Amino acid sequence: MERRLAVIDCGSNSFRLVVFTYTDTWWKRTDEIHEAVRVGEGLEASGALQPAPMERALETLELYAHFCSATGIDEIRPVATSAIRDASNQAEFLAAARERSGLSVEVLPGPAEARYGYLAAVNTTTLSDGVVLDLGGGSMQLTRVADRAAVDARSWPLGAVRMTERFNPGKRKRTEALRQHIATELASAPWLGEDGRLVAVGGTVRNLAAAAQLAAGMPSYGIQGYRVSRDALGDLIDRFSSGPPADVPGIKYARGDLILAGAIVIDGVLEAGGFDAFEATEAGLREGVFFERLYPGALSSDVRRDAVRNLASQYDADFAHSEHVARLSLEIWDALRAQGLHAGDDAERELVWAAAMLHDIGVAVDYDDHHKHSRYLILNAGLPGFSPRETALIGQAARYHRKGTPSLGEFEPEMRRGDAALLNRLAACVRLAEQLERSRDQTVHACEVVVLDGTAELRLRASGDTRIARWAAQRQGDLFKRAFDRELSVV
Amino acid sequence: MERRLAVIDCGSNSFRLVVFTYTDTWWKRTDEIHEAVRVGEGLEASGALQPAPMERALETLELYAHFCSATGIDEIRPVATSAIRDASNQAEFLAAARERSGLSVEVLPGPAEARYGYLAAVNTTTLSDGVVLDLGGGSMQLTRVADRAAVDARSWPLGAVRMTERFNPGKRKRTEALRQHIATELASAPWLGEDGRLVAVGGTVRNLAAAAQLAAGMPSYGIQGYRVSRDALGDLIDRFSSGPPADVPGIKYARGDLILAGAIVIDGVLEAGGFDAFEATEAGLREGVFFERLYPGALSSDVRRDAVRNLASQYDADFAHSEHVARLSLEIWDALRAQGLHAGDDAERELVWAAAMLHDIGVAVDYDDHHKHSRYLILNAGLPGFSPRETALIGQAARYHRKGTPSLGEFEPEMRRGDAALLNRLAACVRLAEQLERSRDQTVHACEVVVLDGTAELRLRASGDTRIARWAAQRQGDLFKRAFDRELSVV
Repeated sequence: MERRLAVIDCGSNSFRLVVFTYTDTWWKRTDEIHEAVRVGEGLEASGALQPAPMERALETLELYAHFCSATGIDEIRPVATSAIRDASNQAEFLAAARERSGLSVEVLPGPAEARYGYLAAVNTTTLSDGVVLDLGGGSMQLTRVADRAAVDARSWPLGAVRMTERFNPGKRKRTEALRQHIATELASAPWLGEDGRLVAVGGTVRNLAAAAQLAAGMPSYGIQGYRVSRDALGDLIDRFSSGPPADVPGIKYARGDLILAGAIVIDGVLEAGGFDAFEATEAGLREGVFFERLYPGALSSDVRRDAVRNLASQYDADFAHSEHVARLSLEIWDALRAQGLHAGDDAERELVWAAAMLHDIGVAVDYDDHHKHSRYLILNAGLPGFSPRETALIGQAARYHRKGTPSLGEFEPEMRRGDAALLNRLAACVRLAEQLERSRDQTVHACEVVVLDGTAELRLRASGDTRIARWAAQRQGDLFKRAFDRELSVV
Repeated sequence: MERRLAVIDCGSNSFRLVVFTYTDTWWKRTDEIHEAVRVGEGLEASGALQPAPMERALETLELYAHFCSATGIDEIRPVATSAIRDASNQAEFLAAARERSGLSVEVLPGPAEARYGYLAAVNTTTLSDGVVLDLGGGSMQLTRVADRAAVDARSWPLGAVRMTERFNPGKRKRTEALRQHIATELASAPWLGEDGRLVAVGGTVRNLAAAAQLAAGMPSYGIQGYRVSRDALGDLIDRFSSGPPADVPGIKYARGDLILAGAIVIDGVLEAGGFDAFEATEAGLREGVFFERLYPGALSSDVRRDAVRNLASQYDADFAHSEHVARLSLEIWDALRAQGLHAGDDAERELVWAAAMLHDIGVAVDYDDHHKHSRYLILNAGLPGFSPRETALIGQAARYHRKGTPSLGEFEPEMRRGDAALLNRLAACVRLAEQLERSRDQTVHACEVVVLDGTAELRLRASGDTRIARWAAQRQGDLFKRAFDRELSVV
């Protein structure tokens, strides 16, 4: 059964209504309304929500409430963060919001806000130990993560709107004052210097990652998992300081005047923590609120598995087939590794599994060229927990699961040395398994590989006639030879 | 409930198993196995199926039978055409096929084969009066169509394999002999000279259309509805005569040696019938067999409506919303036409409806950029009954249903004068209707438009609060003004 949760995020910079639709097997965002309310405008100077921003905020809440009642949303979670939290006239605003929209807005204390950012990060990346940075318009939260658990969290009034209003960086002196301020503030988190990765959350982060991705000439299918080095961030800060930031590709117009301060705050965290990069995720506070509802204990037990299963469940009509192809692919890959025909690591093994699970989802678009459609769906829907490079490898392996000579294509700039050979191995294993399961009835239970001189002999265990499987698999000798440098023989 | 029909097409050139999955609301091809069996090899000279091709055919049938039993197909329809029909040892082949595969292959008489080609054509194009050409490896069928009914049909042994074996065209003299032969044969169809369109079916046709489309620099999302002029066909024949045909982009390698004879046969039909072009469809005999099962009376009552509904049903989670947006879009478009703000014809009206029905299907890929995903699905799944130009306009209108300034983009070469303005109208109507239905609850029942001087006043009839609808619609003033040169006012 499909259920729907609407999260209304009353941020200091923008208000956003996001509808999540979910069942027992999949979830996705299905609607969104975004308004650049800037309720925090003028707050830094006066300490109170100003009349014009407050009126914009109330009108927007009214509209969101109408939308939710009209569309019959099951549940609504309106939450407010820094600007409203810190405003001296918060009570007045909340009362007006309730009266005009019927919505009871929950003001999140700093630690609660930090927790949702943390939930967004650990449920969409493989972060196990390190720090989550969540930069909003009003505040910034840092959460220390150990073995996926939040072990410490703090909030600082270092949001992008606030820092822009207070320091208006750009000229050297004002920028220097902002940097100084950040360093002083961050002295209160001594654990920042410890080891681990830095995962960053929020609109500023997404814009910076998109700009860095474009600047590096990478193909762009979203910024999920994209790693922005400190050097790349420094280059962006230089560009924002020397011309209109909104002219930098990847930076949205409405965020142009805030992005410099935000970038400097993030750079200050990298400096204070000795990080050489941050990883971006597309998820944020809103997803954090949703994940608390979706996952028992608010945590996915395996982010990558869940991402692959989520996508497969949305498109795949024949799950038994995909799971069987995944099993056979892994058996082949494992056997070949055991026989010394490749030395792939466990991360590669996970890519084999993911590509096999998703190879056929493109049939949902059209049977013709469905291998290409599978790639399109994988790249565009995205796979949280996998880096852009890994997602591209999974997409390319699906693309080449039927025919053609695997190539990295437009993803070349994203790839590492050896990835072309890795892709050959992925495609060869998935293609061979697909052919063993060509009859789609799991006739071939399992397979073993025995290497004899120049030949890899694939031995099938099966419950019925394997003629179609052998016939189909034997045809894949060319790619197998290219990937593993052995003749293929299916017996 | 999903049902599956496997059609096994034992053609003279290739054998093909196609699985159609269908429910009460949608259908699509979900699997396919193709083998270049060339069962007709050597038939022209000897009159009988030769041992080697016959063995290839029997092995392929065995494989197909295994596939069907393994995948639990509900129903199998194995049919054979010209080569097997005409072979002196047909009975021997059919008995061997039954023994080795368990399949009872039905040999289609010429008129039955022609009928399936006709059903493929009239159910995937808007052909009402004219001729359907179905060119296979062994034979060619022509069916005369009047008011969508088949009123005459004939089969000629002019298939591409047969003509290649007999005439081996390429050199001027042999080509001339083939042309002469075709002209003589076609004298027996006097109605060929009558009026109407020519729709063509079959693998040769699909290859020729793909090559012509590429030669004309058109973006290629399949050849459904693509019109190949006689001049373009002549150019292709020249290229096939002067170098390896398989080197011509669009021509598949396995068809390279047959395509010239096939092209000359089709050119002979254009000549004999005085046609200046043929329209290609991707459907063929196999779809004809399936349509006989799918449609009452074997005929779609409205090809375009069915194509749009088929696609919408596969992806759209909120049909009530799409249908309401379609209704409102048409009300707006109709009212603006009645008030003289545009002079679009009924074909344009159908595009408005289609774009509105399909605007949101991309949410099935991902909410982010779902307007772009809608276009991708529309272009790649295709819309039988619409030309490539029309399909592109529907796709672009869906692409611009949320934001952005509509543009023809890569489809420019496909378009006619005035299509940029037409696209503005489509996008403006759909976008406005989408906003009136932003709450997705059909609050706005209907709308009228009153034009007062420079302003078009949109008057809403509604059952509830229209604040969100008015607010959202009013924002679309810019595109409305661009499309209809009037200020928009929503009341």
